[in-house]
Amino acid sequence: MSSEAGALLTDLYQLTMVQAYREHGLTDTASFELFVRRLPPQRNFLVAAGLDQALDFLERFHFTDRELDWYARERRAPREFIDWLAELRFEGEVDALPEGTLFFPDEPLLRVTAPLPIAQLIETRLINILQYQTLVASKAARCTLVAPGKLLVEFGLRRAHGAEAGLLAARAAYLAGFAGTSNLAAGMRFDIPVFGTMAHSFVQAHDSEAEAFLHFARSHPDNSVLLIDTWDTLAAARRVVDIAPVLHAEGVGIRGVRIDSGDLALRARQVRAILDDGGLRDTTIFSSGDLDEYRLRELVTDGAPIDGFGVGTRLVTSADAPYLNCAYKLVEYAGTPRFKSSEGKATLPGRKQVWRRFEDGRMTADRITLHDESGTGTPLLQPVMRAGRRLHDETLPVLRARLQRQLDTLPPALREPDPAPPYPVEIGAAIRRLLP
Amino acid sequence: MSSEAGALLTDLYQLTMVQAYREHGLTDTASFELFVRRLPPQRNFLVAAGLDQALDFLERFHFTDRELDWYARERRAPREFIDWLAELRFEGEVDALPEGTLFFPDEPLLRVTAPLPIAQLIETRLINILQYQTLVASKAARCTLVAPGKLLVEFGLRRAHGAEAGLLAARAAYLAGFAGTSNLAAGMRFDIPVFGTMAHSFVQAHDSEAEAFLHFARSHPDNSVLLIDTWDTLAAARRVVDIAPVLHAEGVGIRGVRIDSGDLALRARQVRAILDDGGLRDTTIFSSGDLDEYRLRELVTDGAPIDGFGVGTRLVTSADAPYLNCAYKLVEYAGTPRFKSSEGKATLPGRKQVWRRFEDGRMTADRITLHDESGTGTPLLQPVMRAGRRLHDETLPVLRARLQRQLDTLPPALREPDPAPPYPVEIGAAIRRLLP
Repeated sequence: MSSEAGALLTDLYQLTMVQAYREHGLTDTASFELFVRRLPPQRNFLVAAGLDQALDFLERFHFTDRELDWYARERRAPREFIDWLAELRFEGEVDALPEGTLFFPDEPLLRVTAPLPIAQLIETRLINILQYQTLVASKAARCTLVAPGKLLVEFGLRRAHGAEAGLLAARAAYLAGFAGTSNLAAGMRFDIPVFGTMAHSFVQAHDSEAEAFLHFARSHPDNSVLLIDTWDTLAAARRVVDIAPVLHAEGVGIRGVRIDSGDLALRARQVRAILDDGGLRDTTIFSSGDLDEYRLRELVTDGAPIDGFGVGTRLVTSADAPYLNCAYKLVEYAGTPRFKSSEGKATLPGRKQVWRRFEDGRMTADRITLHDESGTGTPLLQPVMRAGRRLHDETLPVLRARLQRQLDTLPPALREPDPAPPYPVEIGAAIRRLLP
Repeated sequence: MSSEAGALLTDLYQLTMVQAYREHGLTDTASFELFVRRLPPQRNFLVAAGLDQALDFLERFHFTDRELDWYARERRAPREFIDWLAELRFEGEVDALPEGTLFFPDEPLLRVTAPLPIAQLIETRLINILQYQTLVASKAARCTLVAPGKLLVEFGLRRAHGAEAGLLAARAAYLAGFAGTSNLAAGMRFDIPVFGTMAHSFVQAHDSEAEAFLHFARSHPDNSVLLIDTWDTLAAARRVVDIAPVLHAEGVGIRGVRIDSGDLALRARQVRAILDDGGLRDTTIFSSGDLDEYRLRELVTDGAPIDGFGVGTRLVTSADAPYLNCAYKLVEYAGTPRFKSSEGKATLPGRKQVWRRFEDGRMTADRITLHDESGTGTPLLQPVMRAGRRLHDETLPVLRARLQRQLDTLPPALREPDPAPPYPVEIGAAIRRLLP
């Protein structure tokens, strides 16, 4: 199915509120900030991701005729309101953390400044876009930190939550340092390297495993990775050694083998020995199956002779923390700072900036100030959109490089998968003074 | 962004395998079955969902010219193969559990029978479509079981994993018995009732809470639910009582109030007392905030005077079990049953049927047999597509009714959110005889 939707991909209350704002003259300038209230206990940092798609959404924002016809009929909305919606475009300002920036609770990932009705209407889809890529990029970065020098490939499309999740997970993982994805549509759309091996069905469809391996290698003479765990992993590894000379004589190489089940470290050691004894020292071992940063760390620490990993389901669902406690809240309206004090969900008033301080090449602390205060260190929020047009176009390699530089400055304890003491984020005095 | 993609929304290995199948003459008829290996520990049953979108995908299956141009260039694929892909359509057979059917591990949710190359190519997107809706419908059914008679509304679009997840979660929740969704695009696409209240920003944008309530109620005179926890929940409830006579005199009612933070049961009791004392006995209380079947059960058991619940993030991410251990495996090729014996991931050979037995109106046990064996009870897999065309069109109300009937037959222990002893699923002797 197509998930193509216009501006109607939102919650009903956005439209009922906007109708009321307009009927009562609340159309002055508003600033909303998108931030995360608390880190999931399994995360020491987050990676800003998804801004490119968020700005794309704002640039293209409009209701289709079909959406408005349906809404007018379904909700018996006033004609004047529908006509106004038909003309509505986003012409406001956005300031944001550039993609690939590390961030922490209470720090605005993005700020929208625009007339209240339009700034309100875009809430749902903005969160929808930014939360998911941030989730996946953050988990993918944890994987790259525990497996330096290993080939990591995103394999999760089949168990991602729908088509768009599959596409965006591939982008977020690549942004975070993965070598590529198995997802062809993502490869085409985002210019990400694409990787692949073979499935069990390929072996099962043949009457013998050796025949399956010969067929696959001959069809892909420079680039075959043979799956060896359909029946008996060690027997299959010996089969690979047996057929290698036959293929070699034809000018066909075997790039690698994949192990997808069992004790991966044990099997990799046994298979490495069989391949090495058989003269296949250049044939690499690739593994997959229920991998995440915790399993990767075990395998790497254990010294398992595995050259690359397919990381799928647990990455693209961010399985140990499948959502962020994030919100998009009004911080200023008509020049006046705004806040809420709901129990456990209070927000900080005013438009903000985040300043990051460094010592000896390491991040030491962040400070959140009002946007027009001066601070010490590097200001993190940047203007990214003015009058509804984006100010920059950044390529994925640029974002990857930014994140890698930032990860190099991350305090060592935060680089580990285990929970670390929180990174210090100070709230400036001027913000506190705005609270009652 | 648009997630519109053609058949290229798949894993690279599907195409490299298909190229090899064709080059070596493996184009005979294959049957693949999609099933779940194990239930997540937090689930006692699963609800089949997503078949409509799966059949839609198969009916529309094709590569776009742009996709093939990209693939040919990127992978240097043979021209003959690209030309063959351009003409490829799905003209096979599908048997499946009708949507809304309860099912258990090892039971095929769906079987595809078609020439091996096309049956292989569709794997990734089929799993992608069916896993997610099944996840959400299964969790939503658990919510409806613990909160009989309560109004349950799906609120999760913002924290769903992308646009398609948001749309399909609304459908799956409605299929499972929810009253509707906040998601307008899902309302339009699937004809699902849409619900909404107001956000904190609406209150914050006003200089006083009373003014915000008056404005909203006057703009939506028949249908306002006022959010009362922006600053002080009890003071806001008293404010609702204060303004009610003013609005009443204008012919404007207040349908309900929403509480989104704090101790929901305590606050609901206090607010109910304030509303009742103020003569607003018909004004309902709606709650939201980190809800799922566990919290719903607590609130319902506790007798909290809450009439309806918005269930969002934890439902649409299936937060306590964000993926299923599901697979799409070759079970027969060229008339011969096929299996794999990978460690911990073995599969059962042969095309299958599932038979469900009942006693005194309760499900008692299922038995998986070969598809052409006779069995006792009700056969669950039904023909749903022949020659690439679907055989039935079922509306969402029909699917909802099917599931409700099936839930009525579920053994009591399996209806609870807590883990229950597994429902008995027997594997027939004829299947076992096909294993070595």
